[in-house]
Amino acid sequence: MTTQALVSEIIKKQSFLCIGLDVDLSKIPSHLLELEDPIFEFNKAIIDATHHLCVAYKPNTAFYEAYGLKGWESLQKTINYLNSNYPEIFTIADAKRGDIGNTSTMYAKAFFEDLAFDSVTVAPYMGKDSIEPFLEFQDKHTILLALTSNAGAFDFQTLTTDGNPLYQSVLETSKGWKNSQNLMYVVGATKASYFTEIRKIIPDSFLLVPGVGAQGGSLKDVVENGMNHDCGLLINSSRSIIYSSNDFDFALRSRESALKIKKEMATQNAASIVINIYLYFFLKHLPQQP
Amino acid sequence: MTTQALVSEIIKKQSFLCIGLDVDLSKIPSHLLELEDPIFEFNKAIIDATHHLCVAYKPNTAFYEAYGLKGWESLQKTINYLNSNYPEIFTIADAKRGDIGNTSTMYAKAFFEDLAFDSVTVAPYMGKDSIEPFLEFQDKHTILLALTSNAGAFDFQTLTTDGNPLYQSVLETSKGWKNSQNLMYVVGATKASYFTEIRKIIPDSFLLVPGVGAQGGSLKDVVENGMNHDCGLLINSSRSIIYSSNDFDFALRSRESALKIKKEMATQNAASIVINIYLYFFLKHLPQQP
Repeated sequence: MTTQALVSEIIKKQSFLCIGLDVDLSKIPSHLLELEDPIFEFNKAIIDATHHLCVAYKPNTAFYEAYGLKGWESLQKTINYLNSNYPEIFTIADAKRGDIGNTSTMYAKAFFEDLAFDSVTVAPYMGKDSIEPFLEFQDKHTILLALTSNAGAFDFQTLTTDGNPLYQSVLETSKGWKNSQNLMYVVGATKASYFTEIRKIIPDSFLLVPGVGAQGGSLKDVVENGMNHDCGLLINSSRSIIYSSNDFDFALRSRESALKIKKEMATQNAASIVINIYLYFFLKHLPQQP
Repeated sequence: MTTQALVSEIIKKQSFLCIGLDVDLSKIPSHLLELEDPIFEFNKAIIDATHHLCVAYKPNTAFYEAYGLKGWESLQKTINYLNSNYPEIFTIADAKRGDIGNTSTMYAKAFFEDLAFDSVTVAPYMGKDSIEPFLEFQDKHTILLALTSNAGAFDFQTLTTDGNPLYQSVLETSKGWKNSQNLMYVVGATKASYFTEIRKIIPDSFLLVPGVGAQGGSLKDVVENGMNHDCGLLINSSRSIIYSSNDFDFALRSRESALKIKKEMATQNAASIVINIYLYFFLKHLPQQP
């Protein structure tokens, strides 16, 4: 999917919500456990109930790998279901991969070709040649960890390296990599005050923002400090949407939770900004004067 | 597997060789492609031919994920084959995972419980709470990326952070994590000169050392600078062993390549050091004087 197609979808839906499909069998409604593939059935119901409210889904691969071969099969069925039924949706494999060059190529094939995700999250520790193999794929997006939403982010990501925090060096350095136009970045919502600095370095890139909801980040703060002319944000919420109920009404309740966030996106500061995006998009596509 | 069991096996075999099972279908003998599971058949033949020469096998998960569900099945069959037939072998899932706490728990379950590997490689970028969930598993080993063998290692790992290179901060900080006795570290052979500094920080830990062979690292340099009283080294070689031939004799040729490295380990400096390990081990297990 092109970035422009994602932006169009954001404008159309007035939503920049991404729903994390982190399925833990101990948390889903017990009646699903009797089915042959409870994880896929859970995802299917959530997707059918919420696809009109969000622009992206993000399965975290850990939750599938934990169930071995059967889990990997559920992941495959989930992405196939999304690609077949909702091709307008942006799909993210939250895999946090990264390895030496030829090995990263294998990961890129796994997620971009075999599973046919639109994007994959990657970790920067191994540097340029661990990321560039992902960037070679046209209309596929590589989402680099910059500043994550967990407490451990302060162990290394904020260490001062040559005058700047490490995560800023990661942002700055990555801009020089081949096909860097295919990069997006993970920036945690729990650190909204950092967005201003981040936007100075990467004003145009999309940011995948976890940490709103269960992890306590504020949507308002992120929008105020992180939004750009293309919206440039994908706000992820996982647990606070998909585990809204663990009874028969789980899909309906997840829809309500997603709707609540979507509405929040269309009010407050977001309201005016969504209008700005409309205007920007409209003006950008006016026929040029000769 | 306990660290002591690994050390015993190293002493018994006079080898600290780890063989990387990075199976690329385009590189294996073509006659295997006619079989139902070429990847597993290739691994099985390599393992049967080399298990007496090495102490560890390290499948890199990327090479399995690239073939989707079928690849994951090959990985599962490979680890099951190892655990059933050669339980004395130390197994490493080279997965380079790492995520926020509850998600890392899922990865730990995937590799330590579902697949029953002895160890898994992890990336440090997300800090303490992304690694500690792995460390909770008794007699399982978490191998943290410190200084990798690729060119991109110099992008971030060697940046100066508060006076020290980042990889040294990673080593130092990780020592304070809960159950840090379950940590090992990845240190690339292509940077043998760094081993002296690294051993000052983590004198007792095992190091998984890629980069000998195809990537050009010297076994002699690594042994001279990195070996400790427990040996403390696992030297990995992948391509230069498993792709020794792509004809019917591939397993035999891989055995020859592995034997060559094993012999190199038992000569040069390694010879005296292996004797030292013998002596150390022997003295350590003498009955204590009252």
